[in-house]
Amino acid sequence: MRYGVLGTGAVGVKLGSKLVELGHEVVMGSRTKDNPQALEWAQGAGPLAGAGTFADAAAFGERIVVAVNGQVALAVLQAAGEAELAGKLVVDVSNPITFEDGLLRVAPVESDSVGALLQRSFPGARVVKTLNTVNLAVMVDPDAVPGEHHLFVCGEDAGAKEETVALLGEFGWPAHRVLDLGGIVEARDVEMLMPLWINLYKRFGHGAFNYEIRSAP
Amino acid sequence: MRYGVLGTGAVGVKLGSKLVELGHEVVMGSRTKDNPQALEWAQGAGPLAGAGTFADAAAFGERIVVAVNGQVALAVLQAAGEAELAGKLVVDVSNPITFEDGLLRVAPVESDSVGALLQRSFPGARVVKTLNTVNLAVMVDPDAVPGEHHLFVCGEDAGAKEETVALLGEFGWPAHRVLDLGGIVEARDVEMLMPLWINLYKRFGHGAFNYEIRSAP
Repeated sequence: MRYGVLGTGAVGVKLGSKLVELGHEVVMGSRTKDNPQALEWAQGAGPLAGAGTFADAAAFGERIVVAVNGQVALAVLQAAGEAELAGKLVVDVSNPITFEDGLLRVAPVESDSVGALLQRSFPGARVVKTLNTVNLAVMVDPDAVPGEHHLFVCGEDAGAKEETVALLGEFGWPAHRVLDLGGIVEARDVEMLMPLWINLYKRFGHGAFNYEIRSAP
Repeated sequence: MRYGVLGTGAVGVKLGSKLVELGHEVVMGSRTKDNPQALEWAQGAGPLAGAGTFADAAAFGERIVVAVNGQVALAVLQAAGEAELAGKLVVDVSNPITFEDGLLRVAPVESDSVGALLQRSFPGARVVKTLNTVNLAVMVDPDAVPGEHHLFVCGEDAGAKEETVALLGEFGWPAHRVLDLGGIVEARDVEMLMPLWINLYKRFGHGAFNYEIRSAP
């Protein structure tokens, strides 16, 4: 499968590297053709890896991974180009966060979410929100955390969610540990977990934790 | 111990009844002296139970439990009266939610929370946020859900949090399963879980679930 990974930060590098390791072809996209981090990654990741602009990566990918800060995700998809997204699975793993005076801020929040915003803005894309609730290491190594902890998916397109669950399976997540929350409006449910997540991250001193949903039978 | 439980809904009834069962004296407070639900509860709950206005309940209680919808919590504490809250542990279990066209809304959110608002408005009170992340049955019966699932506390006053953890212990929660998130600003962390909680509630068809935080050692 060919993937376009949008974003050259730690999440983009982690997911891009895992996809290459799994035998997929990946172009990492950034604002410019000569982004040093993207070029360095592509050179180090072997023949299945490449680098280019957001539009290059989106054109190359049969599937798109949004691995930028959620607050710039819309601009990044606009740079990628609507035509390059049409019909494609767009996996949004972003959180729309900033820090102001040490306090985590989340925007949009509650009445909207990045996931919903992307789907509204690109109705031809098949947006699925997932993976934003865990640290990047846990994304591709669920066994880094003990227990039957969970991930979430949401989106409008049932087939896109099935493809996403299968992709998460390639990452090591059993399908029964991926909970389908419903339509893309539910992206807010998981984006709103960030303040708790950051608090727990400070508590533990690392990101190797996750939520296991326990329920009476 | 004497408790003032503010609110006559299902949460107030559940917590008031559990406190009476534990041997505490409880006055349930409502907007008026002759609230039928409060009178009915007090008559059925035995000699340790009483009913009155919010001010009556706050004056009676050595500790106060805020068991109303979070969107009216400030008004309820104002009705209770600042003098009746001074120095007291105020346990805020509320969520500031409404439903609009079937969609859960949360307000305040992100930049503020009910917990922080109450503490700011009544600096003499010792506000602790807790229990708002679980169904009312789970609040007083953690074994209704399997596993080592967690509660959270936050607040400015360390002693108030210790008293709260001890109270939760009376409810059946081992202290190691109550995570201290820090100051009252962290109340937003847990109030922002409500959209996910409601989603899971619809999924399971019941409220007997909770989050177990799993972490690498």
